[in-house]
Amino acid sequence: MSVGFEQGLRDVIAVESAICQVDGAAGRLRYRGYEIGDLAAGASFEEVTVLLRDGELPDAQAISTFREELGAARALPADVIGAMEAYPRNIHPLEAVRTAISHLAMYDPDRASTGADSLRRTCLRLTGEIASVVAAWRRIRDGRPAVTPHPALPQAEDFLFMLSGKAPDRSAVEAMDALLVLHAEHELNASTFAARVVTATFSDAHSAVTAAIGALKGPRHGGANEDVLAMLEEIGVPERAEAYIAARLTARERMTRAERAQPRARIPGWGHPVYLVDDPRAAHLRAVGRRVAEQAGVAALADTAEAVYGVMKARTEFPVNVDFFSAVLYRALEIPIDLCTSIFAVARIAGWCAHIIEQRGGRLIRPRAAYVGPAPRPFQPLETRAARPPGPAAS
Amino acid sequence: MSVGFEQGLRDVIAVESAICQVDGAAGRLRYRGYEIGDLAAGASFEEVTVLLRDGELPDAQAISTFREELGAARALPADVIGAMEAYPRNIHPLEAVRTAISHLAMYDPDRASTGADSLRRTCLRLTGEIASVVAAWRRIRDGRPAVTPHPALPQAEDFLFMLSGKAPDRSAVEAMDALLVLHAEHELNASTFAARVVTATFSDAHSAVTAAIGALKGPRHGGANEDVLAMLEEIGVPERAEAYIAARLTARERMTRAERAQPRARIPGWGHPVYLVDDPRAAHLRAVGRRVAEQAGVAALADTAEAVYGVMKARTEFPVNVDFFSAVLYRALEIPIDLCTSIFAVARIAGWCAHIIEQRGGRLIRPRAAYVGPAPRPFQPLETRAARPPGPAAS
Repeated sequence: MSVGFEQGLRDVIAVESAICQVDGAAGRLRYRGYEIGDLAAGASFEEVTVLLRDGELPDAQAISTFREELGAARALPADVIGAMEAYPRNIHPLEAVRTAISHLAMYDPDRASTGADSLRRTCLRLTGEIASVVAAWRRIRDGRPAVTPHPALPQAEDFLFMLSGKAPDRSAVEAMDALLVLHAEHELNASTFAARVVTATFSDAHSAVTAAIGALKGPRHGGANEDVLAMLEEIGVPERAEAYIAARLTARERMTRAERAQPRARIPGWGHPVYLVDDPRAAHLRAVGRRVAEQAGVAALADTAEAVYGVMKARTEFPVNVDFFSAVLYRALEIPIDLCTSIFAVARIAGWCAHIIEQRGGRLIRPRAAYVGPAPRPFQPLETRAARPPGPAAS
Repeated sequence: MSVGFEQGLRDVIAVESAICQVDGAAGRLRYRGYEIGDLAAGASFEEVTVLLRDGELPDAQAISTFREELGAARALPADVIGAMEAYPRNIHPLEAVRTAISHLAMYDPDRASTGADSLRRTCLRLTGEIASVVAAWRRIRDGRPAVTPHPALPQAEDFLFMLSGKAPDRSAVEAMDALLVLHAEHELNASTFAARVVTATFSDAHSAVTAAIGALKGPRHGGANEDVLAMLEEIGVPERAEAYIAARLTARERMTRAERAQPRARIPGWGHPVYLVDDPRAAHLRAVGRRVAEQAGVAALADTAEAVYGVMKARTEFPVNVDFFSAVLYRALEIPIDLCTSIFAVARIAGWCAHIIEQRGGRLIRPRAAYVGPAPRPFQPLETRAARPPGPAAS
């Protein structure tokens, strides 16, 4: 066993992967060799999903077949909708999504097989299902019936349709499609790594995606994008950005090290475990967000985001991350704050599935812990143990 | 970034932990400094759960309070039972357990808090809930109503009561309690590691346990114990052990490397990623299993297991692992084969919760992948892409 270790496995290589290349120092991101900016500008979520899964961009025939299969996969079993209708309404949406995805495993026609073709089919189903589940929960918690999917529509368009119950306009569809492409994949982020750890036991893809959703829910991972929108709304107008950020940075300086490690001690949307410079996805989200915000009549939020960006750049060394300008886009698309991370899941399913397929057949992921507990000691049966003062013992 | 890497993070240290010490070379296992054999012989599952969580064995007063709290935590909300009654019956039990645990998060009174006390309370609830969920599913899938828990009973006894609907005899309770203690914890096995990866994002304990259950389901991890029982039943009588094992070993020798890596290519119950010698839990399970098997009138299965053990020792270098003799115990306790891994979860919840509590406050677990995919390449829009032959592209 090696002696030293890296906290959080930081910079430790866990797997080889041909899916995604993150150059944190240069601020570059490529899916299967293609620049993220080119894909966001020129490829649909469906094309990117096939690219991530298979390694190559699909031709027109392949994308047409895939779109058809994905559309069919958006239909949810009535039993799952019924179970969701009985969930408590005041939960975090990802709790509904995590539970419904786990539930959907029971209806997967390939659930008893471990073959490669079965895995591909299940992953395709998961890609459709998760969009429908997120949209259905948004409707159900508001006391409205889930909207039946339109299988002929592209995923971004049908997703917006299922969310709102009405046909979305073209600019919203383009913005959602770009959002899905930009969030589709990011190497071994915590949710993808969780999915690979589960898959490496030869467990099923629904188990892996359920685990990934649980990881994404954490405020140190996907949960951060909801905090950005909450912050921008709290700031309200661009003129308040300077004072607000200054106050938060000052408060942060006064924190203990432990307090500063709390996820909500950070300025949400800033800093990243891999990028040392601005996240390459941020520039695209900034441009798309600004355009849609103006059309949706929420340009003030985009202005506030720009003001915060300026203050952060002037006052700190933090790079902006993918969550920051996403928040503007979410608001322009009329997404409720607490649904943002669920939409992240609707995008990241493409990456999760690509990694699940790549991991299957790899080795069990089973690191070691360095033991720092008590030395071997003799056991004392209950009747001979001395009474202790109340409260948990030190550990 | 480091250059080389260990497949599956083998022998790589991911965290420091004071919970469990596995000495794979010597075949020793200690929870918080206490030998596993001493704990199996002298401590209840409740004592071990508190030990793993708090670092010290509880005194009589503390264990009485804990037992009371755990008993209360076994009550399931009617809505969750109702949802389980609507699950398809032909699923793997862990699919029901995974989904119900994810569902139970919605009813947790501490779900909106991230404080340390809340986390401890939620973990205690999970420890009770998982036993009730496993037992309830066993009943529900057979078309019988779930048995209401008896909160005053110890967990092992109430669990058997909820499984069968009748008061278990003393030897069965002792055997179940030992089984729970022996499976309660094992350092960074894949399910525990998955729980820590999820927890490190600051996600909730139900998310972490849901992920752990998904990992446990894999045949390379918990799923293996079901395969042992299936194998012993297939062999049937001790006299057939020699020929059966010889045939499987011969078949294995003829396999390609890829075929041999398939989880079901192994002799279930043999080999371990950490132990180089016999698993220290196996000796205890062997003794307890033999005793209960005789009382339950299934000594023939214990004899078959002994015969297989002898053949494997004579013919191979593999060490026996925890799953092998567990199978005898499961059969003696009248546990259906496909429920074995769920019972593993009822035990391992103690370790999962200890690791979740220890991990909370630690760093995000986010390793890197070594990129082995295509070099940067120019994007081609869909309309300019050449048609490809059908079938997935190479990746």
